[in-house]
Amino acid sequence: MSAGTLYTLGLGPGDPELVTLKAARVLGAVPVIAYFAKRGRAGHARTIAGAHLRPGTEELRFEYPFTTEIPVDDPRYATGIAQFYEHCAERLAEWLGAGRDVALLCEGDPFFYGSSMYLFDRLRDEYPHEVVPGVTAMSGCWTRAHTPVVHGDDILTVLPGTLEAGRMADGLAGCDAAVIMKVGRNLPKIRAVLAKTGLADRALYVERGTMTGERILKLSEHDGSPAPYFALILVPGRQRTR
Amino acid sequence: MSAGTLYTLGLGPGDPELVTLKAARVLGAVPVIAYFAKRGRAGHARTIAGAHLRPGTEELRFEYPFTTEIPVDDPRYATGIAQFYEHCAERLAEWLGAGRDVALLCEGDPFFYGSSMYLFDRLRDEYPHEVVPGVTAMSGCWTRAHTPVVHGDDILTVLPGTLEAGRMADGLAGCDAAVIMKVGRNLPKIRAVLAKTGLADRALYVERGTMTGERILKLSEHDGSPAPYFALILVPGRQRTR
Repeated sequence: MSAGTLYTLGLGPGDPELVTLKAARVLGAVPVIAYFAKRGRAGHARTIAGAHLRPGTEELRFEYPFTTEIPVDDPRYATGIAQFYEHCAERLAEWLGAGRDVALLCEGDPFFYGSSMYLFDRLRDEYPHEVVPGVTAMSGCWTRAHTPVVHGDDILTVLPGTLEAGRMADGLAGCDAAVIMKVGRNLPKIRAVLAKTGLADRALYVERGTMTGERILKLSEHDGSPAPYFALILVPGRQRTR
Repeated sequence: MSAGTLYTLGLGPGDPELVTLKAARVLGAVPVIAYFAKRGRAGHARTIAGAHLRPGTEELRFEYPFTTEIPVDDPRYATGIAQFYEHCAERLAEWLGAGRDVALLCEGDPFFYGSSMYLFDRLRDEYPHEVVPGVTAMSGCWTRAHTPVVHGDDILTVLPGTLEAGRMADGLAGCDAAVIMKVGRNLPKIRAVLAKTGLADRALYVERGTMTGERILKLSEHDGSPAPYFALILVPGRQRTR
């Protein structure tokens, strides 16, 4: 019996209509889907996929053992998350080994800061695989903010808000435009770094871009209340209009 | 009579199946499409859209007055291209003013280094508009190269190969991962900058990613022959596997 194929599917920023034709086709054809979710949550990728699944699809839910309870720089984080990914890869391997195709669902684009990469990396040598790129969260957010982000020869820097402040400032030096992902509890630090690097004035805050409950405002008008993980900061580039 | 709506549609990296459901729906519904093309070429966005158009759709072809004949830093370039965009915006305005919806087609994602931004910027205050984000060329390319590009807290820099070498090197300083767009005739300069910044060894060259004639190789193995404009250089990040 031949092994099943691992499809790693980018499902876009949130609006189910921003799924690609290819991802929708695979979702409607596979016998098994797998997805990550936080404890007590439906799972963002699973929510996007909902409308495109056929009835009777088998579901593997991979629940993160922790999210923000253990800091990323704590050694227990590295050990715990590696064990978790190992366990998820084993569960996928069971289905693939049994000849069943599995679609691993991802928000945005799989190879762009996605957890699915850790499973793909563990399984790529053993099983047939196909990755389907998706619209990134940042594309969804700058579109909804009606803000062209990079024109002509602008330099764009993309970085996660989890970075230490000094490294974040270094990363932003010399860029024309910037995107800061994974905002969440890092918002106060990000604001301080943007103020220091002279980028705060033109920064926008986008929460749940393309989804229900979308919120878009100037960062300077944000009241500092806790931000969700699915929030982005956009710093548009030089906005030349030629 | 109410004005038509300007739809600015991102059509993804090239594979027509990487169009979003939303863009495909709009393409099948609008009476008029518009697109940019180089002289003597079909137009990349028009080619992607082909399978999704209904018969009888009106077409506005915007042919660039020049591409590489006039250098970007020549004052004639700025004047000529501004006149061209002005003319294109006027032609779109005629249809929109007559109450017809128009879809302006874009490769990749419209707000990410797209020419369509210059028309959107000229028309956004006068006509109803909607922008549909798309899968970027870089997502298509790193997917096809089977190369997760940014993990965890990697910093990504994206810049166009048209930049002057010194500014390109400054932009790449401190990044973990990089994407260099608009390669074309800039390939020798890009290679020199990557060698100088220590990024050449892990750089990949991707030409026509997701399309017929796709070509993916290590940059070090590229023979230096002329590269098309639709080529990218990818420098993967730290490739941590946790």
